[in-house]
Amino acid sequence: MRVDGRDNLDLREIKITRNYIKHAEGSVLVEFGDTKVICTASIDDKVPPFLKGTGEGWITCEYGMLPRSTKDRKTRESAKGKIDGRTAEIQRLIGRALRSVVDLSKIGERTIWIDCDVIQADGGTRTASITGAFIALVDAINKLDEMEKLSVYPIKNFVAAVSVGIVDNEVLLDLCYEEDFKATVDMNVVMTDKGEFVEIQGTGEKLPFNKEQLEGMLSAAKKGIDEIIKIQKEILGGAAARIGEEEVKVEVLEDNSSQQ
Amino acid sequence: MRVDGRDNLDLREIKITRNYIKHAEGSVLVEFGDTKVICTASIDDKVPPFLKGTGEGWITCEYGMLPRSTKDRKTRESAKGKIDGRTAEIQRLIGRALRSVVDLSKIGERTIWIDCDVIQADGGTRTASITGAFIALVDAINKLDEMEKLSVYPIKNFVAAVSVGIVDNEVLLDLCYEEDFKATVDMNVVMTDKGEFVEIQGTGEKLPFNKEQLEGMLSAAKKGIDEIIKIQKEILGGAAARIGEEEVKVEVLEDNSSQQ
Amino acid sequence: MRVDGRDNLDLREIKITRNYIKHAEGSVLVEFGDTKVICTASIDDKVPPFLKGTGEGWITCEYGMLPRSTKDRKTRESAKGKIDGRTAEIQRLIGRALRSVVDLSKIGERTIWIDCDVIQADGGTRTASITGAFIALVDAINKLDEMEKLSVYPIKNFVAAVSVGIVDNEVLLDLCYEEDFKATVDMNVVMTDKGEFVEIQGTGEKLPFNKEQLEGMLSAAKKGIDEIIKIQKEILGGAAARIGEEEVKVEVLEDNSSQQ
Amino acid sequence: MRVDGRDNLDLREIKITRNYIKHAEGSVLVEFGDTKVICTASIDDKVPPFLKGTGEGWITCEYGMLPRSTKDRKTRESAKGKIDGRTAEIQRLIGRALRSVVDLSKIGERTIWIDCDVIQADGGTRTASITGAFIALVDAINKLDEMEKLSVYPIKNFVAAVSVGIVDNEVLLDLCYEEDFKATVDMNVVMTDKGEFVEIQGTGEKLPFNKEQLEGMLSAAKKGIDEIIKIQKEILGGAAARIGEEEVKVEVLEDNSSQQ
Amino acid sequence: MRVDGRDNLDLREIKITRNYIKHAEGSVLVEFGDTKVICTASIDDKVPPFLKGTGEGWITCEYGMLPRSTKDRKTRESAKGKIDGRTAEIQRLIGRALRSVVDLSKIGERTIWIDCDVIQADGGTRTASITGAFIALVDAINKLDEMEKLSVYPIKNFVAAVSVGIVDNEVLLDLCYEEDFKATVDMNVVMTDKGEFVEIQGTGEKLPFNKEQLEGMLSAAKKGIDEIIKIQKEILGGAAARIGEEEVKVEVLEDNSSQQ
Amino acid sequence: MRVDGRDNLDLREIKITRNYIKHAEGSVLVEFGDTKVICTASIDDKVPPFLKGTGEGWITCEYGMLPRSTKDRKTRESAKGKIDGRTAEIQRLIGRALRSVVDLSKIGERTIWIDCDVIQADGGTRTASITGAFIALVDAINKLDEMEKLSVYPIKNFVAAVSVGIVDNEVLLDLCYEEDFKATVDMNVVMTDKGEFVEIQGTGEKLPFNKEQLEGMLSAAKKGIDEIIKIQKEILGGAAARIGEEEVKVEVLEDNSSQQ
Repeated sequence: MRVDGRDNLDLREIKITRNYIKHAEGSVLVEFGDTKVICTASIDDKVPPFLKGTGEGWITCEYGMLPRSTKDRKTRESAKGKIDGRTAEIQRLIGRALRSVVDLSKIGERTIWIDCDVIQADGGTRTASITGAFIALVDAINKLDEMEKLSVYPIKNFVAAVSVGIVDNEVLLDLCYEEDFKATVDMNVVMTDKGEFVEIQGTGEKLPFNKEQLEGMLSAAKKGIDEIIKIQKEILGGAAARIGEEEVKVEVLEDNSSQQ
Repeated sequence: MRVDGRDNLDLREIKITRNYIKHAEGSVLVEFGDTKVICTASIDDKVPPFLKGTGEGWITCEYGMLPRSTKDRKTRESAKGKIDGRTAEIQRLIGRALRSVVDLSKIGERTIWIDCDVIQADGGTRTASITGAFIALVDAINKLDEMEKLSVYPIKNFVAAVSVGIVDNEVLLDLCYEEDFKATVDMNVVMTDKGEFVEIQGTGEKLPFNKEQLEGMLSAAKKGIDEIIKIQKEILGGAAARIGEEEVKVEVLEDNSSQQ
Repeated sequence: MRVDGRDNLDLREIKITRNYIKHAEGSVLVEFGDTKVICTASIDDKVPPFLKGTGEGWITCEYGMLPRSTKDRKTRESAKGKIDGRTAEIQRLIGRALRSVVDLSKIGERTIWIDCDVIQADGGTRTASITGAFIALVDAINKLDEMEKLSVYPIKNFVAAVSVGIVDNEVLLDLCYEEDFKATVDMNVVMTDKGEFVEIQGTGEKLPFNKEQLEGMLSAAKKGIDEIIKIQKEILGGAAARIGEEEVKVEVLEDNSSQQ
Repeated sequence: MRVDGRDNLDLREIKITRNYIKHAEGSVLVEFGDTKVICTASIDDKVPPFLKGTGEGWITCEYGMLPRSTKDRKTRESAKGKIDGRTAEIQRLIGRALRSVVDLSKIGERTIWIDCDVIQADGGTRTASITGAFIALVDAINKLDEMEKLSVYPIKNFVAAVSVGIVDNEVLLDLCYEEDFKATVDMNVVMTDKGEFVEIQGTGEKLPFNKEQLEGMLSAAKKGIDEIIKIQKEILGGAAARIGEEEVKVEVLEDNSSQQ
Repeated sequence: MRVDGRDNLDLREIKITRNYIKHAEGSVLVEFGDTKVICTASIDDKVPPFLKGTGEGWITCEYGMLPRSTKDRKTRESAKGKIDGRTAEIQRLIGRALRSVVDLSKIGERTIWIDCDVIQADGGTRTASITGAFIALVDAINKLDEMEKLSVYPIKNFVAAVSVGIVDNEVLLDLCYEEDFKATVDMNVVMTDKGEFVEIQGTGEKLPFNKEQLEGMLSAAKKGIDEIIKIQKEILGGAAARIGEEEVKVEVLEDNSSQQ
Repeated sequence: MRVDGRDNLDLREIKITRNYIKHAEGSVLVEFGDTKVICTASIDDKVPPFLKGTGEGWITCEYGMLPRSTKDRKTRESAKGKIDGRTAEIQRLIGRALRSVVDLSKIGERTIWIDCDVIQADGGTRTASITGAFIALVDAINKLDEMEKLSVYPIKNFVAAVSVGIVDNEVLLDLCYEEDFKATVDMNVVMTDKGEFVEIQGTGEKLPFNKEQLEGMLSAAKKGIDEIIKIQKEILGGAAARIGEEEVKVEVLEDNSSQQ
């Protein structure tokens, strides 16, 4: 049995509170057990230089941890004058995950800024961030939609993420910090509601892993993400209605272009 | 009547939630209306160079705003690579306010880090921070006390803060953002439970102010701070018992030293 | 008697040398006893982004200390790669003080940069800076006026500043470094020639202060500033003639707008 | 057929030139087709703070690109004053990959710095870096061994890396830049000579991928890495003799500790 | 005899490999003995602000050292977040040297970026850089010429550089690191193929030098540079044909303008 | 005749005011015409890491310009967060020049910080800085000597600097800004009172220069420096008495060591 009494393939309790910050176009507090992250989605009418004049939009993410979200106080990155490598890695991952489910050519020349700020950390902050930020993103895009700024609904899929790992030779789902610390293999998986992978990042820094262990971790992740997406759908309720409706058309267009 | 229906000398609803972040020695969520700040107090067994070997401790503060705590998204200071002038000014103010009520020679050679992170801003974030951080500080110091690391109880006074200002020639207490924006004079007042001033910062950038206006603002501030300290006392309950008990002795010692 | 033989409410000797740096539109060397600051005012035909296209101008200040202006050599901020919190606080204060006496809508879309560089420090550098920078500002604005770039004369008031504090329970005016170091309360006051407050910043980090002590400090400050403004007027001579002449009209317009 | 005439599962020509830089303890020029990286391993008798006094060592990596290693000139990170997110991500990956095959408790309290500097980029710089840096690392560790500074030989496995991806729905091995740019899925795989995974990083930012596609990419990667490790073995010749010899003992010890 | 067997006025073996990096408009690997530098010239269609709209172009240089180009590993400047003083000094020198032989008014409003990256250092990296960068610059400018983007050929002279110094009271040419370290006087000389000086930088930090020693060093430098420019001419072959052809006309124009 | 009426080989009026800043161990205001620089020498009982435990001391320099020392306001380097290349180059030059005349093994394990801050610039700020900083350095070292902290007097020579250049084909001494701007060749020369060179930095960015022009500039520089050192000697008066007295002995020791 695990440190908090869960079975190996159990998720922690997951809570998503919508409209958590009054100023943001989309905002949630997402909780995976004791891991708590504030995710906001902010709409900005500018795009990065490489997109100017293309008609396309962009989604980008910044991630931070409050200094005392962690067991020991972590020096503030603004005080150090730079973000560290782990932060860079995580915010790039979240950005890619969210861009993968939105048709950026349909949101107009604007940037959606995703901010994920960890207020309490107990393992899995990046997967909680992706999961929560998706809800904030949907709310922000729906706000654009309500203002009739979109001609086609741009969200193609649900996306969620979960961590898996190997601790004492067993595959565990959704590791808390204490488990993460002991894990010989640590993997983050991002998937859509179609059961397809958006991102797999697995590392066996302490001990390499074989094909069967990989299989075990991927099916644990699939189980977890199915449950998480179910929670996302409940939370969104009617706001989820249009997700994926434009998908078929979009894929066909992409196939055409790749045949040229 | 004010934008949110209050009378000129009414505070907004003030809520302080203790033990908000599980890792920190002291932590609160403090709310002044829609202004919400997470304040933590962290104990570190090191001191800044200028105190090494003196037996004295230090209290220092860092302040931050989540990017979307504000109406428009504020660029993350970690991304800019430096903190801005306003942040520097505020964190210095909070640090001074808290140091003023603690006998630093009685906390041992350790630093107490105060972190105030605004998750939602609607005016008065620095005064809410001082008010909330004091509670987090008391909880952290009491933890040291329970571990029998203190020979004398070091907290000399309660301390709290409130903003006052002049809007359309009227003195208002505890300004929300909309009022703050229109105010011709803006003043932050920090006081103890003895009714003494720890800090007064008033600025009439738009219009200078006269002696009577100053009097009006200071008595409004006094009224507000008395009410806030009453709330602090309720929140702390028994944990407040020893605050101020060593005060007389301490002052006598200081008088002696100044006569030499 | 004080360390330098002054009475409690005496200023140090104040000297202001105009046209100290040949390149600047306005420049002075201001001395409050051994505190010496070079203040320049530079006219720049650009404004910060938030003012572009508004027709309004801006006044901003940067403050620095030469490394050996202080008793111990202070690390150069350019070498550290950032300005420290105290510098940020001071330059914001000086900027606010000077903007408070100029009608920014009357100087055209230009920025006046105020640079205050301390070449020798002995307490009161920020109040000396405000006092001296005002003269540099008047000279720079008069240069604009001579070039017929102003339709209305924009300076509404004289402004000057002085420090007051409590040392050994006595109120002292214009503290030198040694007094400042011992002071239990330290206050900087910025006032106009009408006797109105532009800024009050008082801090009792070592010992809180009560209402009577505040009164004592404010009237000491008033006495000091009246004397300082007298010196400013002598220094400026004829160049002071138009200061305040547009004031009544301006205030009336502002009253109107606030009634809407 | 691919842009450079290869079959889908062909590697580019791989060359590793040992002892490329005369000052470094280990150094190679590694070439995967037109991708060229200088990898050096430098021994430093200090360790990061978290290892001081533990008797353990550390391996860390820094990665850089010469400004004109890329098609368009890339701004120098030293000129920007910070490394970008991609660089941080890559150097963390290389560090983890190399640490995974070395028993850090056997190299003594020293740090081995791995520097990977891309002098010409044509896709796959991070996988070429891992592949080449391993050889530099072996040479540096063998130098320690020759100086009799090691009691047990610390290298447990060979490690190499390769990229795989999906372009026009086909799995390709070892993508050049032009293919990488078109790929809908991009994956980097790091494996040992035992056929175990050290790291899998796959991202389907443009199009998610399914289980079969994942299988296809993983077996392509396995094929490629087997070939690459064969090249590493040839290059090292006798210098490879002791790699892995301590492995069994080490694992047994680790098993024991995990049963406690 | 010198440490590497050379006579006092011998150069080390000099090799220049053209077209070393496939992406750059001009690129060489330049070797002065064990000193190896990659020099690239990149054409950019922008100019610095001070040249916008003037029709003139610019040549600028950035210099770097790979961390392990030196005997002891040198901390990466991108990791330190700033370039050090020595780097700044060297890249300014290289930029001036190259600009001195190009008529910038004839290259159009574009910037040619010169990047000199030392991959192995053994003394004389700045003089090797100037020597090699000139070849890369010629190749880049010839590329512009072939694309018919130049109306007049803008290169006026060959330029090359060499170090000289005084070691044990003897004048040495082209010092290696070990000699450079022992030298009491260290001088870098940049000259054209007409035998004129572009830059002389000599420093006697350990021991001042007199007029005769200066004469000795300058004639040694002249001898070295004549040989180096001969090598440059051989390497360039036909590509050197037009260098200097516009010179007379240009100088006449300059003389005219200086007479006004 | 020159812009300010001087003959080609005339210096501007040179003034050196000693003890200009009360806190510094040595301090001067040095004026070369309208160029005015505050130079201070500060004694610090620490040395850089590479000298710890060697018993040797160090002299280092930092250089800055007040923002409005120049014709157009120059952005403050502390605001930009880094010093620019020109500043780095100049402060390295000043440091080398001063170290060249002091026997660092005789000043004990301490650092003398030289700060040169330009308050008004009109060409030649680096040569004025060297000239003035030498006086500040002598005063600081004499203070050490008076405190009996030196066993041997460490200053071996006087050192001073001047600029020379070629304007309209004529050699000019001590160029003001307007001349410097027009010069085709610009050279800074640092010499001792023995007529030996410490540093020569000449650059012909606009037009290369030949041997005769070099001779002309060097003899102009020699004339200027002889006059400047005469001024230094007058200013120092008795304080100059011991300079150079240990010189012979020191050189003998150095010869011995180089024969080993």
